[in-house]
Amino acid sequence: MKRGTLFVISGPSGCGKGTILQEVMRDADVYFSVSATTRQMRPGEVDGVNYRFMTNEAFESLIEQDGFLEYAGYCDHYYGTPRQPVEEHLAAGQNVLLEIEVVGAAKIREKCPEAVFLFIMPPSLSELERRLHKRATEPEDIVQQRVAQAAREISCAKAYDYIVVNGELSEAVAEVEAILRAESCRGINKEELIREVLEK
Amino acid sequence: MKRGTLFVISGPSGCGKGTILQEVMRDADVYFSVSATTRQMRPGEVDGVNYRFMTNEAFESLIEQDGFLEYAGYCDHYYGTPRQPVEEHLAAGQNVLLEIEVVGAAKIREKCPEAVFLFIMPPSLSELERRLHKRATEPEDIVQQRVAQAAREISCAKAYDYIVVNGELSEAVAEVEAILRAESCRGINKEELIREVLEK
Repeated sequence: MKRGTLFVISGPSGCGKGTILQEVMRDADVYFSVSATTRQMRPGEVDGVNYRFMTNEAFESLIEQDGFLEYAGYCDHYYGTPRQPVEEHLAAGQNVLLEIEVVGAAKIREKCPEAVFLFIMPPSLSELERRLHKRATEPEDIVQQRVAQAAREISCAKAYDYIVVNGELSEAVAEVEAILRAESCRGINKEELIREVLEK
Repeated sequence: MKRGTLFVISGPSGCGKGTILQEVMRDADVYFSVSATTRQMRPGEVDGVNYRFMTNEAFESLIEQDGFLEYAGYCDHYYGTPRQPVEEHLAAGQNVLLEIEVVGAAKIREKCPEAVFLFIMPPSLSELERRLHKRATEPEDIVQQRVAQAAREISCAKAYDYIVVNGELSEAVAEVEAILRAESCRGINKEELIREVLEK
């Protein structure tokens, strides 16, 4: 049984990674890793879809069991990537997508050096700012904070295996799908395959 | 200007790599490297399409000028990959495809460590034998020689970056095209791109 590949995807807020991943998941058979959190569920959120909602005690007990690929505290709450569902889907031969910011991605790189790292890049910082303004849901100072945060994240992109520039959505989706497909020819267990082909 | 990527493609005789590459080249903007040889042109062959036909003197003079990425002698004739057209297309930002057997590929890996190596694999050695018989152009002992040679080549496949199993032609073509596309997000000059995105 061929093991699945773990794809770790980062990109600044407003780069369009949510939309890209929605399109990719419609076409490809991949498992999308859902983060765990101890914060309160908000109206409209669904447990197991937006997050796995956990009590503080359950989260800390899972930390002690080394049950997270990475976790962090943010605004008095924990956020983390539960290890078990990721491991199970990989072992069953399914690819796993994990969307996470750059610090979490760096922690996962240490624990899972065989994972494949993608960074979704806006075409420019000014275009990102334009897109954030277009959402028009946030005051100007929050937009400026997001742009500054985006610049810091973009500086980390060189540690990633692949950079996909999201200028045209359909192009970016096609590139992410090509990366998933190409990696299935790269991540292959070559010695096992060669033995099989020669023996059949 | 983004430099092109050199894709080096090997696979045993009968694995279908010629057909796959024809399909890929119909869709993708790539330059196909044409080998040079000192053997006689055969009826139906076109200089610059099947091979670049050269005199012995011209070939040896080019060897002295380090004008080949690799070359070899076979049945009293030289065969080789001229360096200049490959370099020119890569410098102009175009991807280059180079079809070559495993020994030549290993020589190119030494000279061009940044090249990307693909191996086209038959689904099994018995299926390869079936396909060679189906061509029905060669006597049985030649087919058996080709199968033995294929087994030797397949054993070298683990040195390649990607292995594409040619079970279903359309699948294999889609995989090679995905690899070309994915590599354009991998081979990127990341630092230059990050600087551009941050400055724009």
